[in-house]
Amino acid sequence: MISDKDELTAYIEDALCGFLPNSDPASLILEKAESYSLEAGGKRLRPLILLAVCEMLRGRKEDALPFAIALEFIHTYSLIHDDLPAMDNDDMRRGRPSNHKAFGEDIAILAGDALLTRAAVIMSDAVQKSADKSDASKAMNAIMTAAYDMVRGQVSDIKAGKDPSLEYLEYVHKNKTSALFRAAFAAGAYIADADEETCEDMINMGTQFGMAFQLLDDILDYETDECLNLAQILGIDKAKELLASHMRSLKETLSKYENKEIIEEIISIGDI
Amino acid sequence: MISDKDELTAYIEDALCGFLPNSDPASLILEKAESYSLEAGGKRLRPLILLAVCEMLRGRKEDALPFAIALEFIHTYSLIHDDLPAMDNDDMRRGRPSNHKAFGEDIAILAGDALLTRAAVIMSDAVQKSADKSDASKAMNAIMTAAYDMVRGQVSDIKAGKDPSLEYLEYVHKNKTSALFRAAFAAGAYIADADEETCEDMINMGTQFGMAFQLLDDILDYETDECLNLAQILGIDKAKELLASHMRSLKETLSKYENKEIIEEIISIGDI
Repeated sequence: MISDKDELTAYIEDALCGFLPNSDPASLILEKAESYSLEAGGKRLRPLILLAVCEMLRGRKEDALPFAIALEFIHTYSLIHDDLPAMDNDDMRRGRPSNHKAFGEDIAILAGDALLTRAAVIMSDAVQKSADKSDASKAMNAIMTAAYDMVRGQVSDIKAGKDPSLEYLEYVHKNKTSALFRAAFAAGAYIADADEETCEDMINMGTQFGMAFQLLDDILDYETDECLNLAQILGIDKAKELLASHMRSLKETLSKYENKEIIEEIISIGDI
Repeated sequence: MISDKDELTAYIEDALCGFLPNSDPASLILEKAESYSLEAGGKRLRPLILLAVCEMLRGRKEDALPFAIALEFIHTYSLIHDDLPAMDNDDMRRGRPSNHKAFGEDIAILAGDALLTRAAVIMSDAVQKSADKSDASKAMNAIMTAAYDMVRGQVSDIKAGKDPSLEYLEYVHKNKTSALFRAAFAAGAYIADADEETCEDMINMGTQFGMAFQLLDDILDYETDECLNLAQILGIDKAKELLASHMRSLKETLSKYENKEIIEEIISIGDI
């Protein structure tokens, strides 16, 4: 029943574009623009976490799949909109022209809108078909709330100015980066119908993993980032210490659980 | 139990901004940008239809409210993104600077994203709390699917070129304009737990009302529209005839139902 990480990754990759609708000819370009960014790769970290948590807690990966896919759709839409000229103005993403460079700014805005909308369609469809509509709607609510927090984080990032305080920066990352990770852990637990204490453990792990993920990123960009870098504010040694401490707590929480090998492998990022 | 149209409108206006979260200070500007466009007015036609259909079919307006509000959030996000420089590049909307003119393009994109996301949060929250999760998730699914169709319609509109066929144009409007109206009628019926035949009637009314709404718009803009106008393709007389025929069918379908006064008042647009 428990899969391994590669199997879970393949499971996600196979399903990803199948959750797009069959486009009418008149709007085929929309589906192309959506697939272009969905297929650009990446580690599929968020859906992997959701599936792995669900399986660790004895849930079925079939029940979790729509929510995992929706999470990746939301992550992908956020990258398309972040790259837009009015935002970060990035011409390249994952070694290829960014979505607006490939399809134009108008289609890129709409492809982002479509992926976000489709995420909600996929999940509401899953809720409707679910035997346990309570767990499924809880998972959907957690994911959409996180998607809202992500937008909040992006706004506070834009408005941060050149010299933000550590507190402000933590607020930005808690929303912009951690929110979707928190939702991945939480939704996996909800779909597995986990008890309250377990759900709380998973939510805490999500927040902590999100912060660890951002810390690692900022440590690696210590020399090059021009602003908003945690490692620069904390100092590189303290940043590494904090990252190690997050990783220790994550492992400590996980130690209570059985079948934790896959999720442990997925979140092992901090060994620098 | 049955309200009148003004009462329903006031019910919507009162609730609208209450469905925004309390912003953290760091992202207050996001909530301001969302409220700015939500409060810009308009006839609230889509949420009015949803509530009025639900009440006509003996559903409770309290159960329908979150879905009505979500529909208006989705309509509002679409206007913000449509006005962007990369899309229609409109500086004004309802007599005030458009969202990106007031808050900048980056915040406008994010305010649109936030309103769409929030719509899904509001509805998944309602599903979670609903006694009848089946009806509620069906309503949510209908509304999000319509929101996806709307994006499709927008894409096909952008890609239409200067001389589209009547069929192409009907495809555009069926998605861009009619989809949200169809969802308003359908969701109202689902929340009222209507039987299958009634639901089908309501869905057909939604499609027909959407086409009538667009026809009226195109008839009024007959002299000024530069492209994509149904009245220009059909000829003004045939367009008026078609509009009248849509209104007749709408009234005919409605004649089967009791307590239809409010919905009849709301959809009476075609008397030109």
